[in-house]
Amino acid sequence: MFEESFSEAWRLRYGSDSPVDGEVGDRLARFLTHRSVRSYADRVVSREVVRGLVAAAQSAATSSNLQLWSVVSVQDPVRREAIALLCADQKQVREAPWFFAFCVDLHRLNRAAESVGENPAALDTAEFYTMAVVDAALAAERMVSAAESIGIASCYIGALRNDAFAIREFLQLPSGCFGLFGLCLGYPADNVKAEIKPRLGQESVWFEEVYDSERGIGDFDERMVAFYESQGMNPGVNWSMRSARRVNGEQMTGREVIKQFLAEQGLDLR
Amino acid sequence: MFEESFSEAWRLRYGSDSPVDGEVGDRLARFLTHRSVRSYADRVVSREVVRGLVAAAQSAATSSNLQLWSVVSVQDPVRREAIALLCADQKQVREAPWFFAFCVDLHRLNRAAESVGENPAALDTAEFYTMAVVDAALAAERMVSAAESIGIASCYIGALRNDAFAIREFLQLPSGCFGLFGLCLGYPADNVKAEIKPRLGQESVWFEEVYDSERGIGDFDERMVAFYESQGMNPGVNWSMRSARRVNGEQMTGREVIKQFLAEQGLDLR
Repeated sequence: MFEESFSEAWRLRYGSDSPVDGEVGDRLARFLTHRSVRSYADRVVSREVVRGLVAAAQSAATSSNLQLWSVVSVQDPVRREAIALLCADQKQVREAPWFFAFCVDLHRLNRAAESVGENPAALDTAEFYTMAVVDAALAAERMVSAAESIGIASCYIGALRNDAFAIREFLQLPSGCFGLFGLCLGYPADNVKAEIKPRLGQESVWFEEVYDSERGIGDFDERMVAFYESQGMNPGVNWSMRSARRVNGEQMTGREVIKQFLAEQGLDLR
Repeated sequence: MFEESFSEAWRLRYGSDSPVDGEVGDRLARFLTHRSVRSYADRVVSREVVRGLVAAAQSAATSSNLQLWSVVSVQDPVRREAIALLCADQKQVREAPWFFAFCVDLHRLNRAAESVGENPAALDTAEFYTMAVVDAALAAERMVSAAESIGIASCYIGALRNDAFAIREFLQLPSGCFGLFGLCLGYPADNVKAEIKPRLGQESVWFEEVYDSERGIGDFDERMVAFYESQGMNPGVNWSMRSARRVNGEQMTGREVIKQFLAEQGLDLR
């Protein structure tokens, strides 16, 4: 699908020479070439293939085999249009051959507890919410990697959280469930523009023995300025500026109510 | 590493015949054969390979390129013994060629905001915590899939959360950081006993258009009884019984304080 070598992908991620080559690099390359794809070819992804990908998702690790997630596919064209509008009107949600809403699911565990007469007293703890978010994300990312291995690209949709209440109604999510993120899947369009994005240097995210709270971000701001400019975005704005604006509380896009939403779903994060 | 075909792996997951075969099945098989491996060969995983795997982790999707996670490797033998004791004394933590503590990291974003004079007002919201947990899990699972592609197995360690305060001190985690889970990596031991675990049927986790809150778990309890018995575990105990006990609040293994811990780390989940 995307054919950069390991050393090419490494350079695009880090702006430096790769320390890995040979067969190991060749095998790992496909894991470095991930990018979000927002334009899809007019090519069907069959239900059988999707069943294979759901099996990959379910094969991810899950804490104590609790499997605290579910997925709801939205394929009806009218409904797809409606959920796209709920997800910041992103065109890839409307157009993707498949769209999945990955959900935290503590409803199933609640029912299991009821079925054997046990009180699920810990269901509303931060621990169970955290386990469920981890389970859902591990599953989705295994699905994404499996898809990439057969030429199918993807795009995560965080905007599924922009209106948690409306998504609950739209997907008919019961107590204990939360629409965590969306996932678009499809073969990439021939002319797709989807770049490998730079990442922080490894020394900024990988610590040895202990965290170093004074460790900086190296040349990452400069590399991101160059990347943004190459994409025709925000001249002169660097990663720190862009990220800081993201967290200043003025761009919550509806997500400021997630705590309240979760509490109403029986997930108090206590 | 593990050589089950797609249809063999499917049968072990679901107890039924696979709907996928041919080349697609051959390519997807490796994503279905994941299992936790707790015994490792005496074979070095080089630092160069680990750098490749960290690059895979960093190549996972991350919301707005915020990269809200970090990882701390613990390789010093004395420290490894100490962190194993903090993780329920699990032998694989002590013995794995590499051990990584994956962390929620909102410290780096906090510093980025400070560096440009922005107030990171949203840092303590449930939304930012959720984004960070998702980012960390996507990264870890891409690392796991990449490792498997070169014959390296893994085991997630949820017990990293058993004593969040001690882990904070041990890893010197600053405000904004939380040790989310551990990850052991190594080549599997020759004689390793690591089974593909059954999962819920697809009809129990994959809904179409809307969630069905009355959907049951099919024959999963019966399949899990057979699996547990094949492993010499808990005769007659099924998945519902086992899972219900997990959530009754009596097996929190220290994780009942996570909400309090996060609040002390500046993550109020508000």
